[in-house]
Amino acid sequence: MYDNDADRRIDISEPVMSRNDRFAAENRKFLTDRNIYTLNLISSPGAGKTTVLEVMARFFGPGMAVIEGDVQTRRDAERIERAGCRAWQIETGGACHLDAQAVGNALEHMEMEDGTVRLLAIENVGNLICPSGYFLGEDMRIGLLSIPEGDDKVLKYPSLFSTVDVLLINKMDLVPHLDFDVDRVVEECRSLNPDVTVFTVSARTGEGMEEFCGFVESNIS
Amino acid sequence: MYDNDADRRIDISEPVMSRNDRFAAENRKFLTDRNIYTLNLISSPGAGKTTVLEVMARFFGPGMAVIEGDVQTRRDAERIERAGCRAWQIETGGACHLDAQAVGNALEHMEMEDGTVRLLAIENVGNLICPSGYFLGEDMRIGLLSIPEGDDKVLKYPSLFSTVDVLLINKMDLVPHLDFDVDRVVEECRSLNPDVTVFTVSARTGEGMEEFCGFVESNIS
Repeated sequence: MYDNDADRRIDISEPVMSRNDRFAAENRKFLTDRNIYTLNLISSPGAGKTTVLEVMARFFGPGMAVIEGDVQTRRDAERIERAGCRAWQIETGGACHLDAQAVGNALEHMEMEDGTVRLLAIENVGNLICPSGYFLGEDMRIGLLSIPEGDDKVLKYPSLFSTVDVLLINKMDLVPHLDFDVDRVVEECRSLNPDVTVFTVSARTGEGMEEFCGFVESNIS
Repeated sequence: MYDNDADRRIDISEPVMSRNDRFAAENRKFLTDRNIYTLNLISSPGAGKTTVLEVMARFFGPGMAVIEGDVQTRRDAERIERAGCRAWQIETGGACHLDAQAVGNALEHMEMEDGTVRLLAIENVGNLICPSGYFLGEDMRIGLLSIPEGDDKVLKYPSLFSTVDVLLINKMDLVPHLDFDVDRVVEECRSLNPDVTVFTVSARTGEGMEEFCGFVESNIS
């Protein structure tokens, strides 16, 4: 006899996530076996992930490799390659996030056996919601928020901002033209996530990027 | 005997969409029976949907009602109410888009029987990917793209930009501070979607908003 509906519910989200976590654990092993430190960059479309990675590509040079997740087009991978480091593209063909299996498939093709790569940056699909539920095997999860998006986003999108290791507030050069309370954003992020490390940068002007790259560098070694 | 894997594939996306379309058709009937013209606004987080709706609320007054879709918080609904029109909030609790059933549930609670409401604006969850697959019963689908997001977004997110009736390019006041090729965006959008109507506006300064509101007005009558 069934007392309530709950008894008859099948939770399909759990097996999906366990499957993703299994692939993520394989990615983690693959990467740590090769001494490669891995970042997962998540943000809205247009918050500046690719521009951040271009600056990082110039800082880290051929020691960095990039996986680009995009719904469609190879534009971002081409930008990264022009900045001087290797980039592989995953076109999700409509899917709204990267999952660990897709990243694992990319890793098999990336020819990182020669030991030059010590940093892998994964640029997730531009989306503030769906990617946050999928662990890819990364060592550091970075959430980008850009000034024009507004200072109310942290509590509106808590699934991301409660799980990031680093909050990167980008496009600081636009602060004079917009109403954006940086202190509010940092405070709301710390209320969800007390251990978060925060950087304020402008990837476009370079402001704050050396400090951020130095922080990533110190985590690699 | 099975010749190939395709024979054993079960496409679970089709019934889900048909179910959504059934609810969308019900919404459409509910709204047209009451002479209510309906907009579905879709964009990235922070592209300015709520600011656009605040300006529209001042233009249309109590003749407009708003459904606010948010992952979490009632912040946007409160902003709309302060601008002078009624707003109902759907908190999706993690879901990355509105579906027609959620909108239908909201419609039942909105008390629009007195005939004052002639325009309903639905602000979708901030997401450039997932909402585009879900028809809510709207008469007009509006895609917002803001200048700081960059001029490369149309071909990267074709599922939205190929299905909008109106492309609203927002935050035009930031053009002097950024590299954004408006002509490129319009051209790429028209290549996917020849019949799209384009407006360039700044909801913050008001630039272009009267023209846009007038266009919506002319569609209502």
